[in-house]
Amino acid sequence: MKISFKNDYSEGCHPRVLEALTKTNLVQQDGYGFDEYSKKAANLILEKTRSPRSKVFFISGGTQANLVVASAFLRPHESVISANTGHIFDNETGAVEATGHKVNSAETADGKLTPEDIQQILDAHPRRPHQLKQRMVYISNSTEIGTIYFKDELKKLWEFCQLNDLYLYMDGARLGQALAAEDNDLSLEDVAKYTDAFYWGGTKNGALIGEAIIINNRKLQEDFEYHLKQKGAMLSKSRLLGIQFQELLKDDLYFELAKHANEQAMRIKEALNEAGVDWWAETTTNQIFPILENEKIEALSKNFDFYIWRKINEEQSAIRIITSWATREEHVKKFIEEIEGLNYMLA
Amino acid sequence: MKISFKNDYSEGCHPRVLEALTKTNLVQQDGYGFDEYSKKAANLILEKTRSPRSKVFFISGGTQANLVVASAFLRPHESVISANTGHIFDNETGAVEATGHKVNSAETADGKLTPEDIQQILDAHPRRPHQLKQRMVYISNSTEIGTIYFKDELKKLWEFCQLNDLYLYMDGARLGQALAAEDNDLSLEDVAKYTDAFYWGGTKNGALIGEAIIINNRKLQEDFEYHLKQKGAMLSKSRLLGIQFQELLKDDLYFELAKHANEQAMRIKEALNEAGVDWWAETTTNQIFPILENEKIEALSKNFDFYIWRKINEEQSAIRIITSWATREEHVKKFIEEIEGLNYMLA
Amino acid sequence: MKISFKNDYSEGCHPRVLEALTKTNLVQQDGYGFDEYSKKAANLILEKTRSPRSKVFFISGGTQANLVVASAFLRPHESVISANTGHIFDNETGAVEATGHKVNSAETADGKLTPEDIQQILDAHPRRPHQLKQRMVYISNSTEIGTIYFKDELKKLWEFCQLNDLYLYMDGARLGQALAAEDNDLSLEDVAKYTDAFYWGGTKNGALIGEAIIINNRKLQEDFEYHLKQKGAMLSKSRLLGIQFQELLKDDLYFELAKHANEQAMRIKEALNEAGVDWWAETTTNQIFPILENEKIEALSKNFDFYIWRKINEEQSAIRIITSWATREEHVKKFIEEIEGLNYMLA
Amino acid sequence: MKISFKNDYSEGCHPRVLEALTKTNLVQQDGYGFDEYSKKAANLILEKTRSPRSKVFFISGGTQANLVVASAFLRPHESVISANTGHIFDNETGAVEATGHKVNSAETADGKLTPEDIQQILDAHPRRPHQLKQRMVYISNSTEIGTIYFKDELKKLWEFCQLNDLYLYMDGARLGQALAAEDNDLSLEDVAKYTDAFYWGGTKNGALIGEAIIINNRKLQEDFEYHLKQKGAMLSKSRLLGIQFQELLKDDLYFELAKHANEQAMRIKEALNEAGVDWWAETTTNQIFPILENEKIEALSKNFDFYIWRKINEEQSAIRIITSWATREEHVKKFIEEIEGLNYMLA
Repeated sequence: MKISFKNDYSEGCHPRVLEALTKTNLVQQDGYGFDEYSKKAANLILEKTRSPRSKVFFISGGTQANLVVASAFLRPHESVISANTGHIFDNETGAVEATGHKVNSAETADGKLTPEDIQQILDAHPRRPHQLKQRMVYISNSTEIGTIYFKDELKKLWEFCQLNDLYLYMDGARLGQALAAEDNDLSLEDVAKYTDAFYWGGTKNGALIGEAIIINNRKLQEDFEYHLKQKGAMLSKSRLLGIQFQELLKDDLYFELAKHANEQAMRIKEALNEAGVDWWAETTTNQIFPILENEKIEALSKNFDFYIWRKINEEQSAIRIITSWATREEHVKKFIEEIEGLNYMLA
Repeated sequence: MKISFKNDYSEGCHPRVLEALTKTNLVQQDGYGFDEYSKKAANLILEKTRSPRSKVFFISGGTQANLVVASAFLRPHESVISANTGHIFDNETGAVEATGHKVNSAETADGKLTPEDIQQILDAHPRRPHQLKQRMVYISNSTEIGTIYFKDELKKLWEFCQLNDLYLYMDGARLGQALAAEDNDLSLEDVAKYTDAFYWGGTKNGALIGEAIIINNRKLQEDFEYHLKQKGAMLSKSRLLGIQFQELLKDDLYFELAKHANEQAMRIKEALNEAGVDWWAETTTNQIFPILENEKIEALSKNFDFYIWRKINEEQSAIRIITSWATREEHVKKFIEEIEGLNYMLA
Repeated sequence: MKISFKNDYSEGCHPRVLEALTKTNLVQQDGYGFDEYSKKAANLILEKTRSPRSKVFFISGGTQANLVVASAFLRPHESVISANTGHIFDNETGAVEATGHKVNSAETADGKLTPEDIQQILDAHPRRPHQLKQRMVYISNSTEIGTIYFKDELKKLWEFCQLNDLYLYMDGARLGQALAAEDNDLSLEDVAKYTDAFYWGGTKNGALIGEAIIINNRKLQEDFEYHLKQKGAMLSKSRLLGIQFQELLKDDLYFELAKHANEQAMRIKEALNEAGVDWWAETTTNQIFPILENEKIEALSKNFDFYIWRKINEEQSAIRIITSWATREEHVKKFIEEIEGLNYMLA
Repeated sequence: MKISFKNDYSEGCHPRVLEALTKTNLVQQDGYGFDEYSKKAANLILEKTRSPRSKVFFISGGTQANLVVASAFLRPHESVISANTGHIFDNETGAVEATGHKVNSAETADGKLTPEDIQQILDAHPRRPHQLKQRMVYISNSTEIGTIYFKDELKKLWEFCQLNDLYLYMDGARLGQALAAEDNDLSLEDVAKYTDAFYWGGTKNGALIGEAIIINNRKLQEDFEYHLKQKGAMLSKSRLLGIQFQELLKDDLYFELAKHANEQAMRIKEALNEAGVDWWAETTTNQIFPILENEKIEALSKNFDFYIWRKINEEQSAIRIITSWATREEHVKKFIEEIEGLNYMLA
């Protein structure tokens, strides 16, 4: 059996989550978000984000979160701006377009949007109403290539969006890993303060399933439940999501898990740095993209599973190594040893 | 704390499901339906339905199943026919219409569609292309009011649909309860044989979450995965669904649970029949609709939770009592005793 | 060649419209609504409706008007209420549903919605957000069966809609004929005052093509141009619509034509009344629905074209006779004579 | 009054079109495409394209044609490939996305797509079903920047599309001008042979309004009428479109007009070439893009209307001069003289 560094959703969930599900299992609860666990989990989130006027909605997956948000927030003639590495742009089977909204994309160096990127897109759309009205900016933190937004970057984006009548929405599938990065200076409070809405991912950080959508902009909160139900995103057994978030937020288990995930990736990064490896992207979260010789990649893939991300040249490719809350230290150790062995052998 | 007969999703899941999740929790698996558990569960389903050429897709909820099916099966100018009690018609926030498709509805006596009902709708649409082309028939089994389709009824519907170029799709949110009804004569094999597709519900019969869509019509199987992903219905941790279905189908646990649910409702039905109560609908599954005097309803609601379904006249209303895999026999006993007591007191 | 009473769009346009098109033909103009003719025609409309803060948009057809309005005015979870005879309900190939919005329908005696009809629909939707939010009321004047709204009826509807947070939208495909009816007491000013928006039909009353959407509710005016363009409803040669409306409104030609249309229908109605004929609907506009013996219908259809509207019983059916601005008096005379002849023969 | 070279829809229509409308004006006809004129015009088109098994549908505008085609031809998970200069990509307010379909775009040198461009897009979508399935290729001829497809280019595209299960659809808003270009080697027959469908533009070449959609692929013809009606694109007075196309195709008036349009642009081009002007795009149709000094542009805009298309550098910009069937030779002469005068003055 190979050890998998392919993704951060290879295991079930943190054992404490299963215990919490077991403990509450036979308590009768209302459904559709009216169970006590969901209410308590929502309150916990509002405490941690220090935004008591925000509203929290639990949902089963990230693509679902993104499409419900686009459909609920935008009118038919409004579009979304995303980096072309953004998950909604080319990895969700046109989920946003299927709700009728175009995604305008910008090329970026590092997966992060800047006010300049957005301004360029606005500038390219002067022929209104023959062109769409851009109305929402979609960012991911951490990004799809493992980078993170710093506080001043997010703040500037937010100010730009406010000035330009744009909603700012953050896809936080890996928000935990972003906030737990060693060089991060953003707080949850900042995220709530500098976005109109964001989703906070559970699936990739210890939950069996589940994300929390937090809507800070009061206008956008209105009637959001209808959109959830209409898109099939409202679970009758909402307790399943509430219980998990409640448990993950207890004693900051969630952030402990994210920290663990990052640390495992950073250990591999360090070892590869010592071996003089180059990088396709500079990251401090749980995704790393070393550039390796193709023969080393082939040798490594005998015992490990991972994605070959990009061809760099005829001899080299970038691979993606991704770690998680469940990554075992001995597996990381084994991977590092194997790389060191290869370096020795192939040198 | 009141005892709830409000719905069949008030508890978590059958303990064996949690045990199976716990046992497999740290085994690494691929996602998006490529985990081993989902494959095995799909094979189990195909064995039980004896339709090896069908395809199985796991999904988190019923509204989602219905909207993905409508969007995937229909072209833009095609509509769905449903009973006006059908869940898609007025209980899913226009989920089907939001994918662009109208639902043509028929009034029925018992929540079940007949070829005559469908023919009437077809007859009312002669002005094509100024009117939509009806292309799919949606039925629920058991229905939203607890009734079930008998084998000859389903067979006739199927033959009618075949002749009229209509797909037949069954919403099986409570398929277990239908097949476990004492007067049922349908088999799973029949369901697979006489429908183009159906979904088989887990959420309301022992699972934490999850339904299985089974597509029998080979043409409709094509590219179905894209539609799942586009509507946010493809879980990265598909294992969650696979493990549950695998466990529920083992030793026919699933049907045992459905039988339990029905039996509890039937015990109450019997007691009420002895008390001379009238019924709003004649059912043999886990939903019953007795007509009671308003003062009795008020008295009952002190200790029990249930929905008041319909006002019958100034003195009486129909209530819905719903039981489930988790309903305890002592709760049923207590409910019966309370009714008997009321009859005595109020007589 | 048969004489056609099948519809009111069998001919081209009033000769003065062609003359106006010819006269202006080579004058260079901007497109997309920025031509001088469209601006002048819009101003004329605002004068006649005495609603200077309304906005006018020209469009090529009625289905288009209805679908753009639904898409622009409603959010995804909002639905439209219509009589089940309403054109959008079952005669526009699901155009409104294709934009994602359900049409909730009410049975009516005469094609006209009342506050009570609407209240019933609202009452049937208490399970929000599992049910849609009704947000717009669609009425037609004259209705699809030739009846008209009186001033107090429209005013009451408007007040009810205001109280219930519903937009009131009038389909005026045959607004001219409604306002020109002998028993009408509504003015254009009333229509603008008691609706959020309406469309004023040209195609069925003297234009080659074209309708004017008038939006009175200022909030709904915003960005409406985008929706027109997005749905393919913004003509590059907008002059075509502007010139026609300008000409039709000059010297009230438009209302003269509508009056002519109605008078022809009323002449036939009178003759049939004298012959003791019964009616399927009581109308005072250009559509009449006499109930005739099937053999008379067959005899009439040798020289005349019309629709058989409804089977009444084994011996009788209702037919629809529709007249227009272009109906010649001698054709009406011939039709009346033929009916009188038939009465004599078949008596 | 300035002379306008801003667009090719500034005037009404060719006088013969108005005469034809006048002559037929009071003849009674059926609607919705069943009038005799539409039938005859469709037959004329099928003769000229020599594709008797194709089907013809008349429609009022180009955006409408494009959106109906996308909606009718594609399933929800399928996308369109377009050059990023393609009209559907960024000039139709997201009309295609509003029907639920993404437009994948390619940068091109000259507005024309090649098999290599398309292959690159296909190659960038290996992660299916997490990415959309490309299913239709959209090209314009002439393109949005005035260039044309040569026969071998179209044939190669067609063969590539056939091999890759892609529909090829041509936007022919200016098909006349393309086919009338001096260096064109494509015939109408080729266009019908090497596309699955195309639309043939009337609005920009002599009609008041109107385009013809020709569907060559028999599978795509099926039920197309429903989609027209659903999108509000089926005129009740279809005669308006039939009469115009019938007249424009008589004696090849249509191609004569296109030739006139091109010749006027070429005369200006020649004059500018003699004056040593550079070009932003190399075209042989009715759109030309000379690069001029900003002061000359300012001087020219006193008497002429045109668009400034692109800033080239601080001193120079490209402008777009567009001529049409209605462009008068004396206006062209005057424009040339003015340029020559400017050259003299500013030299």
